Amino acid sequence: MPIKAVTFDAYGTLYDIQSVSQVTELEFPSYGDLITQVWRLKQLEYTWLRTLMGKYRSFWEISEDSLVFTLRAIGLDYDDENIARIMDKYLHLDPYPDCLATLDALHGLPLSIMSNGNQEVLDTLVKNTGVFEKLDSVISIDTVQRFKPTASAYELFEKNVKVSPEETLFVSSNAFDACGAKNFGFNVAWIERVTQNALAAEIEASDIVGPSTMFKMLRMQMENFDMEPDYRLTSLSDLPKIVFA
Amino acid sequence: MPIKAVTFDAYGTLYDIQSVSQVTELEFPSYGDLITQVWRLKQLEYTWLRTLMGKYRSFWEISEDSLVFTLRAIGLDYDDENIARIMDKYLHLDPYPDCLATLDALHGLPLSIMSNGNQEVLDTLVKNTGVFEKLDSVISIDTVQRFKPTASAYELFEKNVKVSPEETLFVSSNAFDACGAKNFGFNVAWIERVTQNALAAEIEASDIVGPSTMFKMLRMQMENFDMEPDYRLTSLSDLPKIVFA
Repeated sequence: MPIKAVTFDAYGTLYDIQSVSQVTELEFPSYGDLITQVWRLKQLEYTWLRTLMGKYRSFWEISEDSLVFTLRAIGLDYDDENIARIMDKYLHLDPYPDCLATLDALHGLPLSIMSNGNQEVLDTLVKNTGVFEKLDSVISIDTVQRFKPTASAYELFEKNVKVSPEETLFVSSNAFDACGAKNFGFNVAWIERVTQNALAAEIEASDIVGPSTMFKMLRMQMENFDMEPDYRLTSLSDLPKIVFA
Repeated sequence: MPIKAVTFDAYGTLYDIQSVSQVTELEFPSYGDLITQVWRLKQLEYTWLRTLMGKYRSFWEISEDSLVFTLRAIGLDYDDENIARIMDKYLHLDPYPDCLATLDALHGLPLSIMSNGNQEVLDTLVKNTGVFEKLDSVISIDTVQRFKPTASAYELFEKNVKVSPEETLFVSSNAFDACGAKNFGFNVAWIERVTQNALAAEIEASDIVGPSTMFKMLRMQMENFDMEPDYRLTSLSDLPKIVFA
């Protein structure tokens, strides 16, 4: 079936969430990488755990909660100003180098973001980064108050874009999200930003496996779920040849 | 309200899941600790993600799936025999040193396990480790096919033991589980096996924060959920003075 629409995950897929390490390192010198990795791991955990417990808080609130968790666990002193300056980066995340050109190359199809993020945070982010004018819609799970990979989050796509999941390519570099979207019924392209071989070599070369390598193991490898995505790509720039095949 | 029953989480609370590192190290020399930490992190993730996706597999199956994920991510060659020998440890996990004496000291109240584990795996484990004869019941979430911290998992307690959550002390060293049980309505004692100060000192003393320290950050610190347990204890042996207060 031909692809009639393309939808993208935001954090980690179009936007480099590792770019927060610029500000975590500024606020807490020598702890930037540790904070960045633990924060992101806990942030996702909290979306899953709160959905399971039926106790929704928005992604912005969860991001603050998980950042505070991280600073406490490390034993760092912090104040509201530290938190505010770090959180502000979520309004100015760096798009991946392949983001804007790929969106241009896919011009003509309905293009959208499907994200856990709050609507107004996403709207601000895409405007701040030159992505807004390349998209037809920005869909937040805010309205259903259930985070991915819950079915009710993925259902929002068809309600908004009026194209069925079977005719849509869902793009994510988050393996759990790629599997969740596949399980739901989308065509799925997983962006494998760190290959298994590259990771294995990085582990092999480490005396001690540090936080960034742990993150790559935990969040950037394909899950073992029997919900394999249709495509594994190493860059967003490989998308046009699939979509226009 | 007086405590009329006590129920325990199994993995990490009565049983030391880190004791699997004995076998992971035997099977994959020099990778034992890395495997142990990543495996446990992914195992819990998979219980949450599969519950969110409505795609249940038993805890035993999930444990195998997450072990295979871990070995692949590290780039290790493995066969079914490696997997079987490692998984067998789940039938012989080491009880924590304070486990058996505490159960003895609480004798007289209905004592139970409330666990994600498969019923037959839990039954075998408690028989293999001298715990069976000290318990009144072993409750598995198998029957509802929803893992903790979902409400339907915690609901199983009252159905089985016929004591209300308000009159029960729920004991877990897993912070997400302690919060989930508190959110559900239990009295909760969280076993803080690694204090914040001890963890901060361990991080401070590390040039590179390794897998075991990452695990202590991610899984052994109180979550930032506004669902604080009623009690924070550093050992199971502090339970009798709470229960018989």
